[in-house]
Amino acid sequence: MQLQTVPSFFCGVNPKPLFTAPPRTHQYRISSSSASPIRSLLSAEKEADSMAAKWAQKTVVIPPHRRGCHLVTSKILREIEQDLSGFKCGLAHLFLQHTSASLTINENYDSDVQDDTETFLNKIVPEGRSAPWKHTLEGPDDMPAHIKSSMFGCTLTIPITDGQLNMGTWQGIWLCEHRDHATPRKIVITLNGI
Amino acid sequence: MQLQTVPSFFCGVNPKPLFTAPPRTHQYRISSSSASPIRSLLSAEKEADSMAAKWAQKTVVIPPHRRGCHLVTSKILREIEQDLSGFKCGLAHLFLQHTSASLTINENYDSDVQDDTETFLNKIVPEGRSAPWKHTLEGPDDMPAHIKSSMFGCTLTIPITDGQLNMGTWQGIWLCEHRDHATPRKIVITLNGI
Amino acid sequence: MQLQTVPSFFCGVNPKPLFTAPPRTHQYRISSSSASPIRSLLSAEKEADSMAAKWAQKTVVIPPHRRGCHLVTSKILREIEQDLSGFKCGLAHLFLQHTSASLTINENYDSDVQDDTETFLNKIVPEGRSAPWKHTLEGPDDMPAHIKSSMFGCTLTIPITDGQLNMGTWQGIWLCEHRDHATPRKIVITLNGI
Repeated sequence: MQLQTVPSFFCGVNPKPLFTAPPRTHQYRISSSSASPIRSLLSAEKEADSMAAKWAQKTVVIPPHRRGCHLVTSKILREIEQDLSGFKCGLAHLFLQHTSASLTINENYDSDVQDDTETFLNKIVPEGRSAPWKHTLEGPDDMPAHIKSSMFGCTLTIPITDGQLNMGTWQGIWLCEHRDHATPRKIVITLNGI
Repeated sequence: MQLQTVPSFFCGVNPKPLFTAPPRTHQYRISSSSASPIRSLLSAEKEADSMAAKWAQKTVVIPPHRRGCHLVTSKILREIEQDLSGFKCGLAHLFLQHTSASLTINENYDSDVQDDTETFLNKIVPEGRSAPWKHTLEGPDDMPAHIKSSMFGCTLTIPITDGQLNMGTWQGIWLCEHRDHATPRKIVITLNGI
Repeated sequence: MQLQTVPSFFCGVNPKPLFTAPPRTHQYRISSSSASPIRSLLSAEKEADSMAAKWAQKTVVIPPHRRGCHLVTSKILREIEQDLSGFKCGLAHLFLQHTSASLTINENYDSDVQDDTETFLNKIVPEGRSAPWKHTLEGPDDMPAHIKSSMFGCTLTIPITDGQLNMGTWQGIWLCEHRDHATPRKIVITLNGI
């Protein structure tokens, strides 16, 4: 089965510090010949007079959210967008520092999808008297919260392209709060790229 | 409990542009002494005359696949292998730009594993009249597809070693299509390393 | 909703080799003004006289563990901590090279959480005579192991801050063994940062 390819770019790194000039990249359509991508990569490097790989990292505290799934894309972007704009190509890494909440990427439009996902999680993870859990000291919602946290995970990595998170049209970042008692949640955000 | 360690390598970066010479790395067996790894790292940097970190990014369109789990390792490799060959050490990041399909790593040999995984997903995520979903405008398979997408996730990061994806013998990249109506799926692939 | 931000830092890269001097970073409180983060980033780069991005990669073999979830943070750290200390800012990537075990981040204190998570996995993934699996040649626990591996995943990315894994107070790295017959498990660990 043949794959179609959409426009892409390759980026190199050179020693000049970032602040000498705005980044420049070499745009091209990838070809199927084995030589061309590397050749393009090299020419991109020759032409990139200001590409120095850089790192950015910060810890963001998201205010308490009620139990359920919440779209937090705009909250995250508000914290990183001016820094994102400095990256032509890279990766954004989000790490939730908790074991009773989770991060996932899903529908950014109809909030019913968030409600139905919460319904699903509560349906497959038993809670209360019927639950077989040994770990109950922190309340009936605690052990289910730990399980849900591992099901969806606490970490996301999203590509950065031309200064923006390169997500699909319908994708958004969700913070899923699995505890009944809402608390602030910390996310360590790391940006890396050129 | 003592860990065994297999051969590994450490790589540094220096200012010389990538195209002056092919990359060189300093191979060694890691020891348990605290000094040695760092010392080896430094010597690797001293010896690496052509290690410039580089970035590559492209968007690949995978043609429509029927509902179910599909092994797409070769399709992905066909798109990136010539670029992979330029990386001695790094990471390959795959990001599926959709909320009703998913990416996961699993068995690359017996296709029954793909069928059984689809059977499992359909078993635990209710669909149709019996399902409690509010989000039904896009069809009975849509809300289950969103849930399955968050269960497996839309992003993968795979180590690059000596110009290849460093997966286990039996590991392959799966694209899981959760909708009944197959559509093309976009994956943003980002390579980063030296 | 306004976000609170805790102290963070931004890191640049310059051409000087790592071993000329210890890394320096520019610490500051992020402000909500659009200019300040970038300005801080640039000044951080101007001041960083020894930030060269570096890569480290090794493969660790974890000795056999019985079926269940196991806290392996200290085992992982023992293998990478001296190298971690050389990174001021970065990412640590763990990649389990198997399809019948998984890596996840969860509670590091009460081992009941590990036992309850194993109970949950066994509850939702049918095993034995009642199971609908076609893939049974490798034993009744094999197909369930593949499913559990994709549910939790085989890869983790954790931020590195000031030479340490920047996890939350209660977070730990779990290796989940889904087979009855314990075998050694390989994890490819990749460190990248400055």
